[in-house]
Amino acid sequence: MRTLTFQRVTFTMGLPLLKRAIQDQVEKTRNFVSRSLVIGEVLSMADMATGVKCGIIYWLFGGAIRSLGGPAHVTQWLQPLQEQKYTGMFAMTERGHGSNVRVIQTEATFDFSAQEFVIDTPCKNAEKMYIGNAMYGNYAAVFAQLIINGRSQGPHCFIVPVRDENGSLYPGVTVVDMMHKEGLHGVDNGILRFDSVRIPRENLLDKFGSVGPDGQYHSPIKDKSARFNAMLAALTPSRLAVTFQAMGSMKLGLTIAIRYSHSRRQFGPKAREEVKIIEHQTQTLRLMPHLATALALTFASRYAGTLLDEDIFRGKELVDSRPLQALVAGLKAYSTWENVSCLQDCRECTGGMGYMMENQISGLKCDTDVFVTFEGDNVVMLQVVVRELLAQYTKQCEERPVSSLLRNWVESGSDRLRTSFLAFNMDTVGHLTFLLKAVHFRERILQRGLVARIYYKVMTEKEDFFSAWNSCLHHITCLSLAHIHRVTLEQFCLAVRNCPDQEDQDLLKQFCLLYGTKLVFQERAWYLEHKYLTPMTSMRIRRQPIKSFCIFGKKAWWYFVGGCNWNSVRQPQSTWK
Amino acid sequence: MRTLTFQRVTFTMGLPLLKRAIQDQVEKTRNFVSRSLVIGEVLSMADMATGVKCGIIYWLFGGAIRSLGGPAHVTQWLQPLQEQKYTGMFAMTERGHGSNVRVIQTEATFDFSAQEFVIDTPCKNAEKMYIGNAMYGNYAAVFAQLIINGRSQGPHCFIVPVRDENGSLYPGVTVVDMMHKEGLHGVDNGILRFDSVRIPRENLLDKFGSVGPDGQYHSPIKDKSARFNAMLAALTPSRLAVTFQAMGSMKLGLTIAIRYSHSRRQFGPKAREEVKIIEHQTQTLRLMPHLATALALTFASRYAGTLLDEDIFRGKELVDSRPLQALVAGLKAYSTWENVSCLQDCRECTGGMGYMMENQISGLKCDTDVFVTFEGDNVVMLQVVVRELLAQYTKQCEERPVSSLLRNWVESGSDRLRTSFLAFNMDTVGHLTFLLKAVHFRERILQRGLVARIYYKVMTEKEDFFSAWNSCLHHITCLSLAHIHRVTLEQFCLAVRNCPDQEDQDLLKQFCLLYGTKLVFQERAWYLEHKYLTPMTSMRIRRQPIKSFCIFGKKAWWYFVGGCNWNSVRQPQSTWK
Repeated sequence: MRTLTFQRVTFTMGLPLLKRAIQDQVEKTRNFVSRSLVIGEVLSMADMATGVKCGIIYWLFGGAIRSLGGPAHVTQWLQPLQEQKYTGMFAMTERGHGSNVRVIQTEATFDFSAQEFVIDTPCKNAEKMYIGNAMYGNYAAVFAQLIINGRSQGPHCFIVPVRDENGSLYPGVTVVDMMHKEGLHGVDNGILRFDSVRIPRENLLDKFGSVGPDGQYHSPIKDKSARFNAMLAALTPSRLAVTFQAMGSMKLGLTIAIRYSHSRRQFGPKAREEVKIIEHQTQTLRLMPHLATALALTFASRYAGTLLDEDIFRGKELVDSRPLQALVAGLKAYSTWENVSCLQDCRECTGGMGYMMENQISGLKCDTDVFVTFEGDNVVMLQVVVRELLAQYTKQCEERPVSSLLRNWVESGSDRLRTSFLAFNMDTVGHLTFLLKAVHFRERILQRGLVARIYYKVMTEKEDFFSAWNSCLHHITCLSLAHIHRVTLEQFCLAVRNCPDQEDQDLLKQFCLLYGTKLVFQERAWYLEHKYLTPMTSMRIRRQPIKSFCIFGKKAWWYFVGGCNWNSVRQPQSTWK
Repeated sequence: MRTLTFQRVTFTMGLPLLKRAIQDQVEKTRNFVSRSLVIGEVLSMADMATGVKCGIIYWLFGGAIRSLGGPAHVTQWLQPLQEQKYTGMFAMTERGHGSNVRVIQTEATFDFSAQEFVIDTPCKNAEKMYIGNAMYGNYAAVFAQLIINGRSQGPHCFIVPVRDENGSLYPGVTVVDMMHKEGLHGVDNGILRFDSVRIPRENLLDKFGSVGPDGQYHSPIKDKSARFNAMLAALTPSRLAVTFQAMGSMKLGLTIAIRYSHSRRQFGPKAREEVKIIEHQTQTLRLMPHLATALALTFASRYAGTLLDEDIFRGKELVDSRPLQALVAGLKAYSTWENVSCLQDCRECTGGMGYMMENQISGLKCDTDVFVTFEGDNVVMLQVVVRELLAQYTKQCEERPVSSLLRNWVESGSDRLRTSFLAFNMDTVGHLTFLLKAVHFRERILQRGLVARIYYKVMTEKEDFFSAWNSCLHHITCLSLAHIHRVTLEQFCLAVRNCPDQEDQDLLKQFCLLYGTKLVFQERAWYLEHKYLTPMTSMRIRRQPIKSFCIFGKKAWWYFVGGCNWNSVRQPQSTWK
């Protein structure tokens, strides 16, 4: 399986389209991020392991060089990827630290006399773990504590040669095969250990921190923690790539499950032909909201790609785009969880067939299950979202925190009055305006509530920040998802509004309504608790999806899924085709 | 993998405990069902594929003979399983019909002159599919339409020889390997085709329908449909066996995930040691409710086992125990879905480690995923539950359906008044009494609502029953789960009350409260809509789990999981140890 995947990766990376994508990354051609993301999505639909391995080389290894290195690094290690003389890997996670990577333990000690860094794995917990492409790759982008004169400047990224062109390991490097996983059998994950591996001073990717020939450390960012944040932020595109892969997986799973549901018949009226299983109410109710979510994610993630492209094109540091950081971290968590839940329903809705590997759904499930914890565990991602949201918020309230809080609470009260009259009007609950206001309201109330809770715990109760934050984690994850839901629904609505074809637009609107209804429906307890909904309107919302399905009709589903015209779903704001 | 599993099955079935279990089934020894269920649970924790294959031989093949055959069949085919001279399989599902097995197409045509049945697969859709043990088994319990003089008497079960002792297929039998699945790689699933396979008249398992030497058909049940229901009901124990396997899987997954969460550290207060991940609020909130559910399922499924044992011991036909049928069908669906959701959280809560096969959770996930659709698709199971509940209901209201309905509606109104005052009292929402009343209330209201809806659709709107039922499917699944939730919580409460050890009892009560709170919490929107909860009490329920966790403390978790003393959790009503 790994050999086959290796061949597939070699073939794929040799395609003109992919070579061009690398060159685009080298040149930072306008919109190269969006282009590459879509290539990644399609590739993942063809074969997930190939998609993931190409992603390691292109986004993680290549992306690290582009975003953390200088022009010389790009010329030396990124550009030649087109010729496939070698491949790379990305070594950040350690046995001891997967989420809290700030305190990784691998060391890169500067040896002034030799003008070299010495890379070391000081203990078992410092072993690099789960490293993809570990059994084949030649170079690794290794994160290690940069140590000069016995003092750490925090984690930095170094290019470390692992194997020569013939595949022989360099002295001091040990690689252990991690063997069997739930899925992605074609991806070779391994453990890396370094024993006094010496690399030239120039192998430090030095955009955010460099060491001169004199052994002096220089960085444009003084604070160690802020510096590491800037490095992590620069890797954002690779996080968004996971969202595109998860979307590809959802679309493929849904296509298989919905097509099958249109061909399989089971049960029916007495003495009459059995009906197609898509006509069973539960089957439709299980599959259609996922289809709506896949569409919503399509627009939201393309939007995030466009923002990334703009920032990179304008040379803006990604760490300074707080809303974008929050969006990408949140989309990663949201899309990968939606994918797990979508594929589980696809698998169940196709019965025993869904359990057989030949029908692809179960293989997709196993392959993509890792998405929820890799490239940032989802629960950690949700905390990133809120950290960014609160940073934005704090910035706004910087000068008068307490009075601002109070003012905001008052606003929050009037918000409620301003929007909730819609919720008492039975006719409006099926409208996009109502749904948009509802998700907005939820995000605002949760945000203000969280600020107040943490403020109270830290300032009044004198709790340390970690424990205050930890005791609000459930609240934090709710807010985080509420934020992503709001942005996603907004982007879906924009896409509907800008859709140039009338028939497409009508259909898209139905799915957009279904998506918004799903969001409000699943949180209707919260809306009821906050008296944003009355029991009557809440019940009405419950009936919306079923009503919508009647409108869709069978023809509409076929139009979407049978025709497989995901590509004709237009991205209204994108400047590229 | 299959060879290894085959060896494991041979070893296991050769153990004195298992031989004894077969003998107990032969003799219908008191409580043999409960004993065997627990053996199955433990076996599944050791190796799921072995557990499933043993289950096929013991419950499906063996159980079909015991419950559908006569004493001669038991002596000829069930008893000798102890010597392992041959093994069996169970062939009900066909390519065309997995859920709607009533209309399977395999034919068993009686040949009067030869006094034989001729087994035939008339078309592709009639192929027996997903048959476990198909690549090794010697005999198959095959369901086929019994045809005499060109007329079908409905599906009956026949013992068909598939291979001889050397493993060579008999003439007319074709077996196709179904190859790769998501999991259970040790289980050999295959497709069976029969081409004029002749078997003696005596190979019909004839408890519910026999053919005399004169070619006359006799059955104690005149109605074809009722007859098939009786046969399916007789197979109930094998359905409950799936629940025990799912529970075993949950307990193993939780043990691994909770132990890991107590040893892994990540993040922490500034400049202090990182904290154990179990201390992260989200980790606890994700894992503990599953632990409570696993306990609840333990008591409820043991209760169902006890009822089954009593009925079988008293010689009662299982089809006449409507509440038991509903309970077992519902437990199968509920436990297997809870298992999927539990293992997904276990996998995610253990990060990358959870994705590695060596740590068992992902293997368990893949192995048990099929539980939600095999032995009766879960959505179909939920419909069985409601069919039984409505049959009970109709029986009660038989004489005056309309006035009964009306009377019940009035009762339902007063119910609300009678119970909901508890819900307005903030202090009571954390009490078992309140939680029990709440789940009772939900079940009753949903049941009455459904009866009224179907009655209206069929009687007033003149819809055909199938389409009326189909348009209520969502309602039906809700009622079905509400019923199982109620019974499960009741059994948990009984277990708490009867627990003989004070310390055990206190701890068990906390988990029981957590379980009940989870049930009401997840449906709090519904309770709010029905004004059973006020927004204030609903918010209070939201805070209960977090409050409970503080009470549990670390010591309690260790006591439960570290000590692995699942066995010391006593079954209060069981008469066996």
